[in-house]
Amino acid sequence: MSNFFTSKLKNLTPYTPGEQPKDMQYIKLNTNESPFAPSKAVSEAVLNESKKLQLYSDPECTNVRRELARVYGVDTNQVIVTNGSDEVLNFAFMAFADEKNPLVFPNITYGFYPVFAELNRIPYTEIPLKDDFTVDINDYIRVNKTVVIANPNAPTGIALTLQEIEKIVSSNPNNVVIIDEAYVDFGAESAVSLVGKYDNLLVVQTFSKSRSMAGARLGFAIGNKSLIADLNTIRYSTNPYNVNRMTDAAGAAALIDNDYYMNNCKTIIDNREWTVAKLQKLDFEVLASKANFVFAKNDKIDGEKLYLELKNRGILVRHFTKPAICQYNRITIGTLEQMQKLIETITLILEEN
Amino acid sequence: MSNFFTSKLKNLTPYTPGEQPKDMQYIKLNTNESPFAPSKAVSEAVLNESKKLQLYSDPECTNVRRELARVYGVDTNQVIVTNGSDEVLNFAFMAFADEKNPLVFPNITYGFYPVFAELNRIPYTEIPLKDDFTVDINDYIRVNKTVVIANPNAPTGIALTLQEIEKIVSSNPNNVVIIDEAYVDFGAESAVSLVGKYDNLLVVQTFSKSRSMAGARLGFAIGNKSLIADLNTIRYSTNPYNVNRMTDAAGAAALIDNDYYMNNCKTIIDNREWTVAKLQKLDFEVLASKANFVFAKNDKIDGEKLYLELKNRGILVRHFTKPAICQYNRITIGTLEQMQKLIETITLILEEN
Repeated sequence: MSNFFTSKLKNLTPYTPGEQPKDMQYIKLNTNESPFAPSKAVSEAVLNESKKLQLYSDPECTNVRRELARVYGVDTNQVIVTNGSDEVLNFAFMAFADEKNPLVFPNITYGFYPVFAELNRIPYTEIPLKDDFTVDINDYIRVNKTVVIANPNAPTGIALTLQEIEKIVSSNPNNVVIIDEAYVDFGAESAVSLVGKYDNLLVVQTFSKSRSMAGARLGFAIGNKSLIADLNTIRYSTNPYNVNRMTDAAGAAALIDNDYYMNNCKTIIDNREWTVAKLQKLDFEVLASKANFVFAKNDKIDGEKLYLELKNRGILVRHFTKPAICQYNRITIGTLEQMQKLIETITLILEEN
Repeated sequence: MSNFFTSKLKNLTPYTPGEQPKDMQYIKLNTNESPFAPSKAVSEAVLNESKKLQLYSDPECTNVRRELARVYGVDTNQVIVTNGSDEVLNFAFMAFADEKNPLVFPNITYGFYPVFAELNRIPYTEIPLKDDFTVDINDYIRVNKTVVIANPNAPTGIALTLQEIEKIVSSNPNNVVIIDEAYVDFGAESAVSLVGKYDNLLVVQTFSKSRSMAGARLGFAIGNKSLIADLNTIRYSTNPYNVNRMTDAAGAAALIDNDYYMNNCKTIIDNREWTVAKLQKLDFEVLASKANFVFAKNDKIDGEKLYLELKNRGILVRHFTKPAICQYNRITIGTLEQMQKLIETITLILEEN
């Protein structure tokens, strides 16, 4: 830290992204990326834009917002797009939470929420999950604070039903409820269908998982047009050209090819169910996942040890050191071949221990 | 504004980007874009990345930072890259200014500085330029505040010398001095040569102007490694994957082709000098520009009227409504053909008025 760093942020602990090692090739099951490349139309759209990079991108992101509105059945003024969904989450925290409207979210969830709260110096309460790692919706009913729920939750993969989400939204009419649906396309129910009914609901999604575009950085939020206008006030006060030309075009092209991506999601769901069955046969306890990852532990081997043994053998999974979850590993669902290799390798590790 | 928007930011007035009309094709001389497309290597690098978008980008942006370090003769830990230079400016304001270290910058300069200050609720003082639109460096000597200077300044195009910049930096050892060099490659002197000598100097640049990549969104800052570490604390607390794969690769490819871009800058400087001479012949007063634009007025025609007449005839320039500069227009320097068309059109407009 330099002598010049503001004392306001001296205690800020940044988010730690999953490791991206460059020393060797791994089977990468640690950052919830899709194993499938984007469709050819995406490459073509990107190549076309690459020849016009001297011109600023469209600050209104008209192309991708039009396609999002079409796919999700909303108006374009109900949609904002950002440089990954982390950006729109940060904007939403800035816009809709403050000392008078503090934040509440689960104590085990996406690790960026407390970082955004600290960065923006917003008070927050982390509400413990139940012992089975589910969210108790009673903790959020009439809580009278700005609510953030990842649905499905991370890193557990467990989803609330649409009915449960609606109870939280309808019981907090004076606060915004942010539903972070990064993983929703792998089997959970989206709350986008409720945005017409509730002016306090903001649904956040991303192209990083189900649409194979983690490296392009494209997130979006859907909500009442007044909420979206507020987020645009923040966006135009931060970075009006936040989505570059190539990503804007790639996003629009991906949505035109939406069936390709939704079919990939089905394959990943099938691979997940195959993996869960195999892990259970190996005596793993696996939480009920509706995401493109599973969260699993095995009483026969320490969580960190399994993570390290897998890494030594060329397979990366994600391990968290928080005591409540340190016996678990979060394993991204890849291709069937990758999952077969994972199961083979875990079988060997368990035999040797 | 929704009922949910935080009262903290109720008075925030967002930045207004230059117009990007979609109704017809204009000769676009309003947003300081390069008239030259990026080099072929950029397209090739982008196409290659477009096939791997399912994988997250490198949060360390190793490729482009390595090339920046090589081109600018610094270490990689003295470089940070961001989603356009607006992002690193915002990060720098967050990191290095607060109630105890308020901001100072000229009253006529890049319009985003007061917006970032308001967004982050940092007190700021706007120091008037001299009557000839130059910065009086005495206003910034031992000012004991966080200083922001665009050099060359916008929208005037007037540059301070390196010696003048050094006086400001050396006289404020307890505060960061941010030199925003978005336009430096068009004839001004960069302060990058001073970063080894002063731990309080942060130099901000962009690929948007001289390297034909406005649409790719790539900015960077060079400074003491402790300053860069602080900016990374903010970056990892905001958006660790802030630069996407395609832009990272495009930036690295552009720097390998650096001669192409620096030659384009020479052409733009030639075109600028041609344009200035022609405008002066038409009785324009033109400020001495070291940027890829000129700021000019003509007592024979109102500034806004000239802007509108040019727009009607298919040429976009940038007009600002602030009283002190509303008689001027900011005209981006394009190709010689574009500038010839501009001069022809202005000649006609002046004859008709």
